[in-house]
Amino acid sequence: MKDLKAILTTVEQLFREETFLAAPKGLYEPIEYTMSLGGKRIRPTMLLAANQMFGGDERNAVNAAIGIELFHNFTLLHDDLMDQSPLRRGKATVYRKWNPNTAILSGDTMFALAWRYMLKTETTRLSDILNCFNETAIEVCEGQQYDMDFEQQQDVSIADYMMMIRKKTAVLLAGALQIGATIANADSDDIANLYDFGIHLGLAFQLQDDWLDTYGDVALFGKQTGQDIIDNKKTYMILRACELASPAQCDELHRLFGQNTQTDGESAKKISDVLSIYSAVGLRAEAENAIAAEFAKAYESLDRLKVSESAKLPLVQLSESLLGRKK
Amino acid sequence: MKDLKAILTTVEQLFREETFLAAPKGLYEPIEYTMSLGGKRIRPTMLLAANQMFGGDERNAVNAAIGIELFHNFTLLHDDLMDQSPLRRGKATVYRKWNPNTAILSGDTMFALAWRYMLKTETTRLSDILNCFNETAIEVCEGQQYDMDFEQQQDVSIADYMMMIRKKTAVLLAGALQIGATIANADSDDIANLYDFGIHLGLAFQLQDDWLDTYGDVALFGKQTGQDIIDNKKTYMILRACELASPAQCDELHRLFGQNTQTDGESAKKISDVLSIYSAVGLRAEAENAIAAEFAKAYESLDRLKVSESAKLPLVQLSESLLGRKK
Repeated sequence: MKDLKAILTTVEQLFREETFLAAPKGLYEPIEYTMSLGGKRIRPTMLLAANQMFGGDERNAVNAAIGIELFHNFTLLHDDLMDQSPLRRGKATVYRKWNPNTAILSGDTMFALAWRYMLKTETTRLSDILNCFNETAIEVCEGQQYDMDFEQQQDVSIADYMMMIRKKTAVLLAGALQIGATIANADSDDIANLYDFGIHLGLAFQLQDDWLDTYGDVALFGKQTGQDIIDNKKTYMILRACELASPAQCDELHRLFGQNTQTDGESAKKISDVLSIYSAVGLRAEAENAIAAEFAKAYESLDRLKVSESAKLPLVQLSESLLGRKK
Repeated sequence: MKDLKAILTTVEQLFREETFLAAPKGLYEPIEYTMSLGGKRIRPTMLLAANQMFGGDERNAVNAAIGIELFHNFTLLHDDLMDQSPLRRGKATVYRKWNPNTAILSGDTMFALAWRYMLKTETTRLSDILNCFNETAIEVCEGQQYDMDFEQQQDVSIADYMMMIRKKTAVLLAGALQIGATIANADSDDIANLYDFGIHLGLAFQLQDDWLDTYGDVALFGKQTGQDIIDNKKTYMILRACELASPAQCDELHRLFGQNTQTDGESAKKISDVLSIYSAVGLRAEAENAIAAEFAKAYESLDRLKVSESAKLPLVQLSESLLGRKK
């Protein structure tokens, strides 16, 4: 039985050995570039961990692991173009390093390459895996659309927001787990519980990401806090703050989130004004409770699995490393 | 046994009854819009015709027919954005009617929806169909990349050009036929011959499209001739003309294809200068021979099929209507 570190090593080796280069170069070089930028490889790791948990043969799951990571990177490639993000993992995004058309077409090709690997999976349950993969892909697209819609929309409820991050982020983690477990021929109860674990872990992770932007330790997380506030980004923090706030506080938050600051001084002032309202409405504890609640639900689902505690270890380790906390 | 007209009626009804609307609207309305614009529905028609040819049950093939048309329209949606084409079938393209991000994301979703229909196909050979669909999709992406590459490239040979149009246009016709025949459980020889028929028909069709731009009857085809010349577009016509031309004529063609004309008068002069070189090198007959050769190869492949002549009738009718000529 491999622990998390050993599975991560396997995944790293998988991507080091695999090449996505082919002709025409203009199409495949951006794909090779994207796949070699690295990243945490969370989804293939979860897929292999789920497969191992139910006694699956790793060799039957590696193609699906590559496929799920190709799909994830395809969505990043198109999202970066849609969001006009200049950097990804500290390097130029494809539409910047090449051009928008390359980002579109190389992205499309990555989606098809993801299918090529998925289709190579050796299993009697191929149809289940492919349906799960495809329905997940559709939900991820829907999540991205809701995310773009919400940026233009005044009143976004926490329920709306949770639905959006569920589709945009959580279903792909859950789908990766489901596919890994299905290849190992897990039963339907275990698959459903593992899927729920992935959903709640994904929600906890995204909520924590929102929380970190406001209350994160710069030294620990390497990201400047307050960027979402400067960008007027609708996250759990502002949306929940407005629900908790008085009408006057909510108006003030809306006014602040309508500002585009020009100088560092203006930005610092905006962040501090927002933070003082967050503090007044008790947002920090509220957000921490919401994260803890999702994390607890994730563990409840994991507890229900009919496998030994030691079989669960890699996923427990992964959850702890993602969320920086223990059960 | 349905003739071409009856199959076309079936296909029309299929798309009239099917809706692609769902939430979020911003994602699915552009898909519904695209799919309701119509078009000749050549690919689903070919798929159903191939399925019928080998005695397949039409009900098992309709989902794949919808899937192949969704895929085709997805490629048009992204191509229109990449090519900045304002119109498709006389209506505003999606990136114009909505915006580029919508074109990207709704397109991605159409590709996934195509898979949803493909996956619904009732057949014991699902894996064959899905592999054919996916490898075809990858080739179509490669074809679009070569097309964009060639626009920036000085020396494109006829062999390069044929490879490009094979991938960009012909493989999807061939793939549609292969999928239809596979659902009907045709044997591998018949599938290979039918695939070749699709390839050569697609090549003949694209070469004819190039020829029509130069020598087409405006009254018959409703398209102004010479547009490719005005746009400096690399088609069979200019590429083959350069191969046939003297160095001096070739230089003159390159000079003319470097011009961006500003007035109708300038455009007319450019077209007439190009046409006089085409005429001097005998391009018209050359192109007509090339079209006829591909058409003949298509029919040779069709002749090899181990089915009755009456079973071949719908595909013969389709070829004639596409190419406006008889066997």
